[in-house]
Amino acid sequence: MESNSYNDATPKSRLGGASHHAIINLVSRLRQGDTRALARAISLVENDAPVAPVLLSACFPSTGRALRIGITGAPGAGKSTLVDRLARVFHGTPELPQNNKTVGVIAVDPTSPFTGGALLGDRIRFQNYHGDPGFYARSMATRGSLGGLALSTADVALVLEASGKDVILIETVGVGQDEIEIARLADITLVVLVPGMGDDVQSLKAGVMEIADIFVVNKSDREGADRVEQEVRALQSLASDHPAHTPPVVRTTATTGDGIETLATAIDQMQQWLLQENRLSKRRAQHWQRRLDAMLRTELMRRARQNGFDANVLQFHAARIASGQQDPWQLVAQLTEKVFSGNST
Amino acid sequence: MESNSYNDATPKSRLGGASHHAIINLVSRLRQGDTRALARAISLVENDAPVAPVLLSACFPSTGRALRIGITGAPGAGKSTLVDRLARVFHGTPELPQNNKTVGVIAVDPTSPFTGGALLGDRIRFQNYHGDPGFYARSMATRGSLGGLALSTADVALVLEASGKDVILIETVGVGQDEIEIARLADITLVVLVPGMGDDVQSLKAGVMEIADIFVVNKSDREGADRVEQEVRALQSLASDHPAHTPPVVRTTATTGDGIETLATAIDQMQQWLLQENRLSKRRAQHWQRRLDAMLRTELMRRARQNGFDANVLQFHAARIASGQQDPWQLVAQLTEKVFSGNST
Repeated sequence: MESNSYNDATPKSRLGGASHHAIINLVSRLRQGDTRALARAISLVENDAPVAPVLLSACFPSTGRALRIGITGAPGAGKSTLVDRLARVFHGTPELPQNNKTVGVIAVDPTSPFTGGALLGDRIRFQNYHGDPGFYARSMATRGSLGGLALSTADVALVLEASGKDVILIETVGVGQDEIEIARLADITLVVLVPGMGDDVQSLKAGVMEIADIFVVNKSDREGADRVEQEVRALQSLASDHPAHTPPVVRTTATTGDGIETLATAIDQMQQWLLQENRLSKRRAQHWQRRLDAMLRTELMRRARQNGFDANVLQFHAARIASGQQDPWQLVAQLTEKVFSGNST
Repeated sequence: MESNSYNDATPKSRLGGASHHAIINLVSRLRQGDTRALARAISLVENDAPVAPVLLSACFPSTGRALRIGITGAPGAGKSTLVDRLARVFHGTPELPQNNKTVGVIAVDPTSPFTGGALLGDRIRFQNYHGDPGFYARSMATRGSLGGLALSTADVALVLEASGKDVILIETVGVGQDEIEIARLADITLVVLVPGMGDDVQSLKAGVMEIADIFVVNKSDREGADRVEQEVRALQSLASDHPAHTPPVVRTTATTGDGIETLATAIDQMQQWLLQENRLSKRRAQHWQRRLDAMLRTELMRRARQNGFDANVLQFHAARIASGQQDPWQLVAQLTEKVFSGNST
C-alpha cells in the first residue's frame, strides 16, 4: 500500500494523537522565542525520540533563512574562543549590541569519557549569555553510529533555525570524517589552522582542504603564521579542479579579538557570493541530497528492526559467524529477503 | 517469499552462472598462493563489484586463524615505518627470515586529492618485498560513504586471510571516527603516540583511548617521551570502567628499530591473553555484530535503490527541499513506504 500524504505515512502511526498535538504546540512555542520549549525540542531531536520526525516536519516551514556557519579544525586550534568572538560580533553583548542578529551555537564534541570535562567547560563558557533570548548555545556529544552525529547536528540546527536564529554557528572538535560531514551541512565552512601544530600539511588531510570556504589562521601572533598561509596557498595551487571561489586566508588572534572583524567581513562577502547565480540554493540542494540519503538509511534500518533484525538477533548470528558456523554474506542475503517479504503482508 | 539457502538468495541473481564459476576459481587460486589472483580479488572487493559477496563468501571458510593487528595514531607519528619494522619482525626479510610468518599489510588512507602522493610513497616503501609470496601489501584510499571504508577494509583483510597470511597489519592514517571503526575490526589495536605533537591530551580524543590494547610511544628518542607516557597513565587512571587488561605502554624508535622486539613481545602477550577465557572469540563476535549491522545497511540501501530511490530521484527531491517546496520527513516516510510496498509484488 502506498501512502500519498504525510498523515497516512509512518511517523504518525508511531504517535498518539495527543502526543502529536503536544509537539505542534511545542514547536509553536519555540517559534515564538520560548527558550524552554527550544531546549526541550532540541533534547527530543538529539535523543532521536519517536516524535522527532513530526517535530522536525513542523519546524521545517520556518527554516531556510538563517546562515549556517561551520567551524572545523584540529583540536587546540582555538575554535571555541573564535566561535565565542564571532557570536559576539554577530549578536553583540548585552552591554554592547552590535549587529543585533540572533545567534545559535552548536558545539559538537564526539568526546571520549576521558575528556568529558570539555562539555562542562562549554557550559561555563556560554553562561554570560544566560537570560538573553537572542542567543542560544548547546553542546552535543552524542556518539553512536557513523554519520549519526552529523544527522543529529543538522536536525538540531534546523530546530534552532525555526526558533528564529539569524546565524547558526556549528563548531566541531577535530577534523575526522564525522566532522567533515557536519561541516558540509553548513552554508559556509571555516577551517581553522594554527602555526606550529605538528606537521601542518599532514594535518590538512582527509578532505578538509576541499570543504573550506575560508581559512582562518588563528593564534597568528605566534611564529609561523606566514608559513601556514604559504602552505595553504601551495596546496591550493596543486588542486586539480580549481573552485570558482578561491578561499581567502584570514589571520586572527581569537584571545585578543584581533582579526575577528576582518573574518566577519570575509563571511559576509562569502554570503554575498553565495547569493549570486543561485549558488546558495545549489549548495543547499547538495546538502539535502546527502542528508536525504542518510535519513533514508536510518528509516530503512528502523523498519528492518521492526521486521526482525534487532540487536539480539545480530548478536546471536555474530557469535556463530565468529566461530565459523555461519557465512555472513549468506546471512545478509537471507535477512534482507526476510525484511522485505515480512513486510509484504 | 523467504529464502532458506544461499543459492536462492540475492547475490546469485546478480551473477551469471559462468561468472560465479570464475569467482570460485579465482578464490581457489588465491588460496593456493597465487599473488595475481589475490590482487584481482582484492580489487573486486575494494571496488564493491557485484561478485564481491560471492567472492567473500567463498573466502570465508578459509579464515579465522590469522591475527589482525590495527595500527592507528595521529598523522606524522611514524606509523608507516613502525608497520614496516613489525612486518620484518613477523616475516623476516628475504635475507634474514626470522619468525617466518606470512604477512599482509593494508595501509588505509582516506586521502585528499591534495596529498595523493602518500600512496606513491607506499608503493616505493613496499617494493623491497616484491617477489616474496609470503608478503603482500596494499594501499587503500577509497573515500565514499561514511563507514564504507571500514567495511571495505574488513573485506580486504578477509581476502588476505584466505590467501593464507598469518598476520594482517592494518594501518590507518589519522585518528578520526572512520579510523576508529577500522581499528575496531582488528584483534589487537596499537595506538601510536609521539612526544611533542601539539596538545597530547587533546590528540587522544574521540574514542581513541578506549580502543588501545597497546600504546606505542614512537620517536621515543625525542624529548618528552616520559611526559607522553605519564599522560597516558593519568588518563587511564581517570577511566571510569577499568578494563580487565591495562594496555601496556611500549617505547619505540621505528627509524632505528629500537623497541620493535619489545613491541612484538607485547603483541604476543596480548594474543596469549586474548586466547584465554574465550576473549578472542568474544571480541570477534563483537566485531561481527558491528560489521553485520553495516552490511545489512548497505544491502538494504542497494535493494532500496533497485526499488526507485536512486541518486537522480534524491537529487530532484533535494532541490525541492532546499527551496522549501517539499518537507523531507514526509518524503522519507513516503519513499520508505514505496520501497517496501514496491517489493511486495
